Amino acid sequence: IAPNFLIDGKLMALPMVVEESSVVAAASKSAKFWMEKGGFKTTIINTQKLGHTHFIFDAEPHKIKHFFNFTLKKKLLESTENITANMRKRGGGILDIKLIDKTSELENYYQLKASFDTVDSMGANFINSCLEQFGKTLKEEVEKEEEFTAKEKESLQIVMNILSNYTPDCIVRAEVSCKIEDLKDDSGISNEEFATKFKRAVTIAEIEPYRATTHNKGIMNGVDAVVMATGNDFRATAACAHAYASKSGKYSSLTHCTIDNGIFRFWIDLPISVGVVGGLTNLHPLVKFSLALLGKPSAQELMSILAVSGLAQNFAALRSLVTTGIQKGHMKMHLFNILNQMGATEEEKQHFVTYFKDKTVTHHEVISEFEKMRNAKN
Amino acid sequence: IAPNFLIDGKLMALPMVVEESSVVAAASKSAKFWMEKGGFKTTIINTQKLGHTHFIFDAEPHKIKHFFNFTLKKKLLESTENITANMRKRGGGILDIKLIDKTSELENYYQLKASFDTVDSMGANFINSCLEQFGKTLKEEVEKEEEFTAKEKESLQIVMNILSNYTPDCIVRAEVSCKIEDLKDDSGISNEEFATKFKRAVTIAEIEPYRATTHNKGIMNGVDAVVMATGNDFRATAACAHAYASKSGKYSSLTHCTIDNGIFRFWIDLPISVGVVGGLTNLHPLVKFSLALLGKPSAQELMSILAVSGLAQNFAALRSLVTTGIQKGHMKMHLFNILNQMGATEEEKQHFVTYFKDKTVTHHEVISEFEKMRNAKN
Repeated sequence: IAPNFLIDGKLMALPMVVEESSVVAAASKSAKFWMEKGGFKTTIINTQKLGHTHFIFDAEPHKIKHFFNFTLKKKLLESTENITANMRKRGGGILDIKLIDKTSELENYYQLKASFDTVDSMGANFINSCLEQFGKTLKEEVEKEEEFTAKEKESLQIVMNILSNYTPDCIVRAEVSCKIEDLKDDSGISNEEFATKFKRAVTIAEIEPYRATTHNKGIMNGVDAVVMATGNDFRATAACAHAYASKSGKYSSLTHCTIDNGIFRFWIDLPISVGVVGGLTNLHPLVKFSLALLGKPSAQELMSILAVSGLAQNFAALRSLVTTGIQKGHMKMHLFNILNQMGATEEEKQHFVTYFKDKTVTHHEVISEFEKMRNAKN
Repeated sequence: IAPNFLIDGKLMALPMVVEESSVVAAASKSAKFWMEKGGFKTTIINTQKLGHTHFIFDAEPHKIKHFFNFTLKKKLLESTENITANMRKRGGGILDIKLIDKTSELENYYQLKASFDTVDSMGANFINSCLEQFGKTLKEEVEKEEEFTAKEKESLQIVMNILSNYTPDCIVRAEVSCKIEDLKDDSGISNEEFATKFKRAVTIAEIEPYRATTHNKGIMNGVDAVVMATGNDFRATAACAHAYASKSGKYSSLTHCTIDNGIFRFWIDLPISVGVVGGLTNLHPLVKFSLALLGKPSAQELMSILAVSGLAQNFAALRSLVTTGIQKGHMKMHLFNILNQMGATEEEKQHFVTYFKDKTVTHHEVISEFEKMRNAKN
């Protein structure tokens, strides 16, 4: 659990599930740093989920468009009324359905592209159920439509009905900012130098895909740990974030940094689709605990928390990278993994904490000192 | 545990850690399907890991290049001899170091780009330790170099030293193939139709990023579950796979499919960096169990297993998508989650299995039938 997160004026502790203890330590350190400077601010930019019915249809394009606009769209909505009834009661449902012509990329390939509001659920089952009904309705309505020839009707193939995990319109922004003069770092460099170095590290992640991959991986250290703690699907959140990172045609950083008029500003735009009801959320005891710890957030509040977790993690990583390097802190945490593996006693562990107080931990050094210590005892 | 994986002639069961039970079911189903057709074949294409020292240096470019080639490179290798000693004993170490001029993208920005062989470890700590030493050596050697002016020397800034999780040259291929006539599917469509539909679904994932994201997410359902079971870092494997998926400038599918001369072929090229020693691999009891279950694989063998797990998962997903749709199988698995949540008895669960035998499970239908059943009892 990473404490001291001040998010939109509310203090909270984040549950994190991750095999690397240094991730939780880094998140907490960032949280504390920003708690004293007003904390994290978040904005939900949009919450639209997407899904597609992919189909092949060798019919005259203008007839397909006319059919969609004047017949099909209405029928698609009607035929899913049963499925959407509960979701509509909760304030969500199908937002829109569009016909997308993809024939320039693949012969006779079209999509029904639907957008959804799934309120507090991630909505995968809901969306897929709607889409599978779309596929059926499309087939039935084409069959009935008198404008299509028999040959055209026969050409229709529903390839698949499936939600998209790429949700660039389900997006949250999290940011921190402060005056350069308040940006005190304990590594001994000046505030200005720290700010400049930090910003340059972000710029490098913006222009260099080799760096952006690791930079964004670090962001997902924070995001995924909370995704997992809250019973959400980390493969989905990762796929979405990384696909979004490549949207310009060059894989790039999810975070950005500016220094303007003496103000340091650091933010993330994170597309992410998660739920606080449905799936495993009410089933797994630790998921229940995590959601309770977070004060039973709505899906939108959870989006904010996740973006903050990613931003905090990235801040911690860059802060270490541009000052002391990441190995010092990381290996300090990893020391206990190595010692546990070798069966060190509590007393022996204390010896190592003292031993490495002013040295960088390396695996080699731990093993060799351990052997020395044990030999001295025998 | 997903049984029946025949990989390069060896039969194995894959340990999978994932919150979604349908992932394991789907993997097993694919494995069985291909076991009867010769199983999965894999090829390690390369195993190079990468890392960079990112630095800013306002000196004459030709002087920097000369300095790197005739002085620095040798010193970088020498200064890391202690760190690399153990790795070299195991057959690995630093493969090469290059100077990369990035000044066209950011003023005075250069990289030392190093490639590594980390044998059976993922190598993150090893690589970062080498790179942090590179940063120190670079600073020291520039200071000593008489060719640089005082002003040039002063301009040197080491921005950061860090491995890259993007490893396009640490890559494995896994594939399946069979005659179309052997591609028997139980969904009632002909072999030819199944093959054509399946191939078209892959093509759509190749050309449509909205689909590619979910398609690759499904692949990572399989990959990450085994990554996690074996104590590896799933944020790293995800970041690498998704960055690689965007390498053409358009986010695209990681798997590909061909039908040539009556042969159906389906494969994945997966860049992935994992370890079977170091990190948590010898510490967590379930990681030890997982590695033992897999017959204590080398890192390269684990790469193959992971690629197979992803390919199997993708085959299962596409097979469902182009035939019955994914909701049928998925909700059948999810039924027990819903029933457990409502506190159903074993006898009541049996009732639901019978009830949904020929119906698609929906959350709404489970709840309503559950209430009917309980009311009937009272």
